[in-house]
Amino acid sequence: MLGITGYAGQELARRLVRHPQAQLVAAQSSGRGGEGARRFDQVLPSLAAATGASSGSLPAGLEIVPGTPAAMLAARPDVVFLCVPHEPALEWVPALLAAPQPPRIVDLSGAFRFSEAALFERWYGMPHSAPQLLAEAVYGWPEKNRARLARARLVSNPGCYATAANTALWPLAQSGCLGPEAVICDAKSGASGAGRGLRDDLHFVELEGNCSAYGLFQHRHTPEIAQHSGLPLERLTFTPHLLPTSRGILATTYVPLAAGVTAEQVAAAYRMAYAEAWFTRITAPRLPDLHSVAHTNFCDVGWKISPDGRQLIAVTALDNLVKGAAGQALENGNLMFGFSPAAGLL
Amino acid sequence: MLGITGYAGQELARRLVRHPQAQLVAAQSSGRGGEGARRFDQVLPSLAAATGASSGSLPAGLEIVPGTPAAMLAARPDVVFLCVPHEPALEWVPALLAAPQPPRIVDLSGAFRFSEAALFERWYGMPHSAPQLLAEAVYGWPEKNRARLARARLVSNPGCYATAANTALWPLAQSGCLGPEAVICDAKSGASGAGRGLRDDLHFVELEGNCSAYGLFQHRHTPEIAQHSGLPLERLTFTPHLLPTSRGILATTYVPLAAGVTAEQVAAAYRMAYAEAWFTRITAPRLPDLHSVAHTNFCDVGWKISPDGRQLIAVTALDNLVKGAAGQALENGNLMFGFSPAAGLL
Amino acid sequence: MLGITGYAGQELARRLVRHPQAQLVAAQSSGRGGEGARRFDQVLPSLAAATGASSGSLPAGLEIVPGTPAAMLAARPDVVFLCVPHEPALEWVPALLAAPQPPRIVDLSGAFRFSEAALFERWYGMPHSAPQLLAEAVYGWPEKNRARLARARLVSNPGCYATAANTALWPLAQSGCLGPEAVICDAKSGASGAGRGLRDDLHFVELEGNCSAYGLFQHRHTPEIAQHSGLPLERLTFTPHLLPTSRGILATTYVPLAAGVTAEQVAAAYRMAYAEAWFTRITAPRLPDLHSVAHTNFCDVGWKISPDGRQLIAVTALDNLVKGAAGQALENGNLMFGFSPAAGLL
Amino acid sequence: MLGITGYAGQELARRLVRHPQAQLVAAQSSGRGGEGARRFDQVLPSLAAATGASSGSLPAGLEIVPGTPAAMLAARPDVVFLCVPHEPALEWVPALLAAPQPPRIVDLSGAFRFSEAALFERWYGMPHSAPQLLAEAVYGWPEKNRARLARARLVSNPGCYATAANTALWPLAQSGCLGPEAVICDAKSGASGAGRGLRDDLHFVELEGNCSAYGLFQHRHTPEIAQHSGLPLERLTFTPHLLPTSRGILATTYVPLAAGVTAEQVAAAYRMAYAEAWFTRITAPRLPDLHSVAHTNFCDVGWKISPDGRQLIAVTALDNLVKGAAGQALENGNLMFGFSPAAGLL
Repeated sequence: MLGITGYAGQELARRLVRHPQAQLVAAQSSGRGGEGARRFDQVLPSLAAATGASSGSLPAGLEIVPGTPAAMLAARPDVVFLCVPHEPALEWVPALLAAPQPPRIVDLSGAFRFSEAALFERWYGMPHSAPQLLAEAVYGWPEKNRARLARARLVSNPGCYATAANTALWPLAQSGCLGPEAVICDAKSGASGAGRGLRDDLHFVELEGNCSAYGLFQHRHTPEIAQHSGLPLERLTFTPHLLPTSRGILATTYVPLAAGVTAEQVAAAYRMAYAEAWFTRITAPRLPDLHSVAHTNFCDVGWKISPDGRQLIAVTALDNLVKGAAGQALENGNLMFGFSPAAGLL
Repeated sequence: MLGITGYAGQELARRLVRHPQAQLVAAQSSGRGGEGARRFDQVLPSLAAATGASSGSLPAGLEIVPGTPAAMLAARPDVVFLCVPHEPALEWVPALLAAPQPPRIVDLSGAFRFSEAALFERWYGMPHSAPQLLAEAVYGWPEKNRARLARARLVSNPGCYATAANTALWPLAQSGCLGPEAVICDAKSGASGAGRGLRDDLHFVELEGNCSAYGLFQHRHTPEIAQHSGLPLERLTFTPHLLPTSRGILATTYVPLAAGVTAEQVAAAYRMAYAEAWFTRITAPRLPDLHSVAHTNFCDVGWKISPDGRQLIAVTALDNLVKGAAGQALENGNLMFGFSPAAGLL
Repeated sequence: MLGITGYAGQELARRLVRHPQAQLVAAQSSGRGGEGARRFDQVLPSLAAATGASSGSLPAGLEIVPGTPAAMLAARPDVVFLCVPHEPALEWVPALLAAPQPPRIVDLSGAFRFSEAALFERWYGMPHSAPQLLAEAVYGWPEKNRARLARARLVSNPGCYATAANTALWPLAQSGCLGPEAVICDAKSGASGAGRGLRDDLHFVELEGNCSAYGLFQHRHTPEIAQHSGLPLERLTFTPHLLPTSRGILATTYVPLAAGVTAEQVAAAYRMAYAEAWFTRITAPRLPDLHSVAHTNFCDVGWKISPDGRQLIAVTALDNLVKGAAGQALENGNLMFGFSPAAGLL
Repeated sequence: MLGITGYAGQELARRLVRHPQAQLVAAQSSGRGGEGARRFDQVLPSLAAATGASSGSLPAGLEIVPGTPAAMLAARPDVVFLCVPHEPALEWVPALLAAPQPPRIVDLSGAFRFSEAALFERWYGMPHSAPQLLAEAVYGWPEKNRARLARARLVSNPGCYATAANTALWPLAQSGCLGPEAVICDAKSGASGAGRGLRDDLHFVELEGNCSAYGLFQHRHTPEIAQHSGLPLERLTFTPHLLPTSRGILATTYVPLAAGVTAEQVAAAYRMAYAEAWFTRITAPRLPDLHSVAHTNFCDVGWKISPDGRQLIAVTALDNLVKGAAGQALENGNLMFGFSPAAGLL
C-alpha cells in the first residue's frame, strides 16, 4: 500500500495486519514519515497494537519506505491500495498497470470516479492524464457494483460523502420513488476527512466548539453523487459542513417523493437495494447517529416521510475513514479476491 | 427574574448584574437551587465573577429563592424575565399581569409566540390557558419589531432556532425574492439548547464525537419560523441536529429564488432589512461560523447563490443562549425601557 | 457475562463475539436493558457491528436477559465475567462458586482485590460478606501474576487507575530503586470511567472544556496500588482527575529514587519486569499519550529522571475500558484457559 | 498594543475596547494579519462584537498595522502592552523606553520575569540583551506586588502556569507553613496556551480525546514559580500537561507541611494573602474547576490536608488567556494608572 501515514492509510494498515488471508508486503509513504526506512510501529505507535509484542521482529513489509512505483512492483503485491490524493494517483495507476505482471489496484482518490474525463476536468480543475482507464475502472461501492468487483483490475474507491449520500439516494432513484424536484444533501463531517495537513481551521482551538459550512455549490463529491446514484446533476445540491469532532459523517438528505409513492414502497426500495449488503444497515424507524458506526465499516440509514407524503428525509451515518475510505477499500479488496466481504473488518 | 439556575437564566443574570442602568432585584428559581434562600454566587460560582470581590456583601436580589408570583411582585420589579418552560410561563404571565401595578414581562418560553391559540395547541400538545393575551404579546425579535417593543407590556422572546432561521428568511420573504418551491432549514445546535436536565443522550460519553438529527417534521420552532418570517408553513421543512459542542446554532437554509431575482436584489434585501439592526451582521461573501458569535449577542448571516441563480443557501450563526435566548431578552428589555439596545450586551 | 449494558460490558461483549476460541453463551444485565429479553444488537446498536449481517439470526446467548446466578449457571458457562459494582459482585461470586460444577470467575469489581477484609471495609465503607474467598482470589494483572492465573478459580480484575499506577511503580519497587520519600501519582481519566449513570458533572455542557480533581486522599484505588505494587500505603498519594474526554487514563507518577540508582538500573528494572508482557510497552525515552493506547489493550510506560538523579517521573497511559477493565479481563480469561494472551484483543 | 492577532492579544483587545477609562490607540501585529492596514474586525470577526454596530466607522487605532516601535511611539500611547514572545520583547522594551517621553510597558513575555540575567539565559537558551532593566521590572502579580505597580515603568506580566502555581504556593511559603520536602506541581493546560502556530500535536484530530505530559524537568515557568513564590528552585518539580480543551489551567500542587502546622494556620495564610485581592478567590473546602473561571480574570484556589496532617494538596484554576495573560495584563494596567483593578474585567 501507498500512503500509510495518512489517516485513511493508518486505518487500512491496522486492518490489513490482522486480516486472516491478506498480508501487507509493502508499506510506502509519499509524505511525512517517508524520508527513510522505519518500522511503522515507530512512526505510528498506535498501529503497533496490531503487530504483537513490542519486542517482536517485524516482516519487511512493515517498514515504511518512500514510495515509488518501481519499489512497489518489486514487492510483487497482488493488489496495491493507493491512499494518496488524485494527483499522485494519476501518476501511479498507469505506471503500475504498465508492469509486465501488473497488480490489481484500489485507488482511494478521486482520480477515476467519473466515466468522462470532462467531468473530472471541470470539478478537479486539471486535465485527466489517463482517460483511457476511466471506462475500465469499477466504482467500488459494493452495495451497487458487487458483481463487477470480482474481475476488476482497477477499482475506484468512493468518496466518503458520496457513499453517505448515495446510500440514501440510490434505492429511491432506481426504484422510481424520486419526485422531479431538487434534492438537497446537507452533510456533516468530522475533521479527519480533511487529512493530516496543518490548516488554521483544523487547529484544535479553532475547531473545538465550532461548526461551519464550506464548498457551497462546488464540492467535488457533488457530481460523484449524481453519477452513481442516478440523479441528474442539476437537481442535486450538496453542502458539506465541518463538525467539531474527529471522525464520522452524518448526511441529512431531503428527497422529494414522486406522486403516489407510499411508505411501503419506500421501505421496500431500501430493503431490496441492501438485502445482500454486508455493511449497509437499515435502522428505520430509528435514525442513525455517528456513534452507531464509529470505528466500523457500517453505513446506517434511516428515514422519515412528511405527514403529507411528499418529502422524505433520509439520515445516513458512516465512519469517514472506514466505510468512507479504508474499510470500503478493504471490502473491495476482499471481493476482488473472493474473500468474505467482512474479512478483517469486524 | 425567574429561572436563574438554568443555562439561559445564568446568561441573563451575568449580564444584568453588570448592566449600567438595570438592577437585578429578585432572583428566583423554580427548579434546582430553588429549595431555599442562597446567594447565587454559591449556587452558581461562575456567576460570582460579575459581583466583585468574593468577600463583598450582596444585595437582597442576589439571593436565590423559590419562585412565586407573589414573591416576585413583592420585589416591585419594572420588568420580569421568565426563563422557564411554557407550562409555568402560562401560569406566571396572567398572574403577574393581574397585579394592581403589573410589571412588564419578557417571556423566554414558547407560550406566547403564536397569534392563534390553535397553532400553539397543535404543536405544544396542550390547551392554551391564556389565549386572551396572544394578540397583545409582541414577538421580541428587534430586527423586525423594534418599534412595537417600546410600548409592549408582554414580550414573547423568540426561539433560538427561529431567530437563526428567520434571520435568513425574513428579508427574502418580505422583499419578494422567494420562489414558490419549498424551503429547507437544516440547523445544528450545541447541547445547552436542551437545558440542564439529565438525559442519556446528553451524557458526555454519549455526545462527544456524536451528531444526530431529531424532531423530524415536528419541531415546535417550525410554525414559529413560518409565522414570523412570512413563509407559508406548508412550504417549510425544518430539521434540527445535536452537535458535539456546548453552545451555538448554525443554520443552513436552502431557499428557492423567484425567477429573475439578481444577486444585487438579494444583497439589497438583506442590507435593508438589517440596516438598523444592532446585532445582526452581514458577513457575505464570507460565511459565518459558531466562533464568530459565541458568547456574543450577534447573529451573523452570509449566503451564496447557485451558478444558475435559482437557489440561495444562507448560513446563519448565533449563540443559542445569548441572541437565541438571554441576550435577546435583555436587548428586548433595553428597548422596552428606552436604553441603548446594547446596554449590558457588549 | 453479567453487566453487558455498561461501558466495560459492551467492550467485553464486542471482543468476545469475535474471539476465535470463546463463545458468548449468556448476556445478562442487572440494570438498564435488563427488564426483558432483547437482542443485544437492538439494545446496543454499535455492538451489532460484530455480529455480521444485520439480517442474520443470533444465537441465544446474544439475547440480553435480567441477570440471576441461577440463570447464569443454567447456561453452563466455563467462565463468568462480572461487569458490575462490588455490591452485586459480593452476592454473585459466592453464589456461583457454590454450584455443583462452578464456573470460573473474572470479577471486574473491587470486591476481591485486597488480601484482608479490613482494608476493604475501611475503604469501601461496608463489611465484606465473603472474606473466605480473599485468599484464593488472584489479582488479575498478568504482568505480575501470569503464572497463577492459569489455575485460578476466582480472578479479581484490577482497577483502571491501579493498573496505570502499578505499571509505573511495581518494577521500581521490586528492584529496590525506590527511595524512602513519598510517591505521588497524579492521574487523569476520561468520563467513561465513571460509568453510564447520569450525573450533573457528566452532562456534556458541564464537562466539555472542564477539568477537575476529585477524591483527594480517599480514592479506593489508593490501597490497591499500594498493595499490589509493594509500596507502603502511607508513602503513597493518589489523586484522580476528570478529563474532558470519553476514554483513557494518563497517570503521571513522581517517584523518589534510592541513592545511587542509575538510569541504566531503572531501564533494566522496567525491561525485566515487562520482558514477557504482551500488553505493556516501554516507550522511553518517548512519553506515551492517550491516543497511543485508545481502543487497545496496551498500557504504555515512559519516564524521565531529574538532572540530579533523585527523582523519576513515569507517565503511563491505557484505555480505561480496555486494559483498565474489559480487555484485561479477557486477557485474564485467555490465560485461565491456555489461549494466546492476545486472542480477541488485537 | 502589539500582537493583537494572537490569542492573548485578542483577549486584551476585546477588553480594552470596552474599558470605561482606557482607549486603544494603536493595534499592531507582528505576525499573521500584520501585512497591511486592515480593520481588526475584519481580521478577527469575533472582536467586532465589542465595537458596536457593524456599519459603524472605527477609530484609527482599530486598524491593524505591522508593528514597529517608531509607529507605536507615533500613536503616543500612555502604556504599551506587548503580546509577543520574549525575542521581540527584548528588542521592543529598550526601544520604547529610549524614547524622549517613553510609554509605560506591560510585557506579557518571559523576557523580564527574573531578577538575574543568568537565570534567563539558562532557561531560555539565549543571552539577555537588556539586563539593565531587570532590576527595575516589576513582576505583575497584583496579589503580591500591588503597591509597586502604581509607579512601575516596566511591568513583567507573569506566566500562565506560574500564576496558577504561585497562587497555591506563595501564601504557604511566606507564612512558614512549608515543610522541607519537595513540592510537586502537576499542571494541566488547554491548547490555547501553545498559541496559534500550527503544530502536529495541536491538529484537532491529534488532540481531541488525547492528553500528554511535556517539558519534564525543563519548562521555563519552573524557575519563575520558584523565584516569585519564595520556594528554592531545587525543591520544586513542575510538570505541564496538554488537555483536550481550548482554555484553562488546572494546577494540582502537592505541598509538604511543616511539622505542627494546623488546618487553621493554613486557612489563615491563604485568607491573609488574598484579603485584598480582587481576582483570587478561596473556594475551600470546595475545589475549583475550569468552568468556574473560564472567560474570567479570576484565579480560584481550594485545598485539602491529608489525614495525618503532613501534606496539603492545593488545586488552583484560572483561564490561561485571561488571569494567565491578557486579563492580568489589563489588571496591571489598571493599577499602574490608578483605575479600579476590575475596570474592563467584569
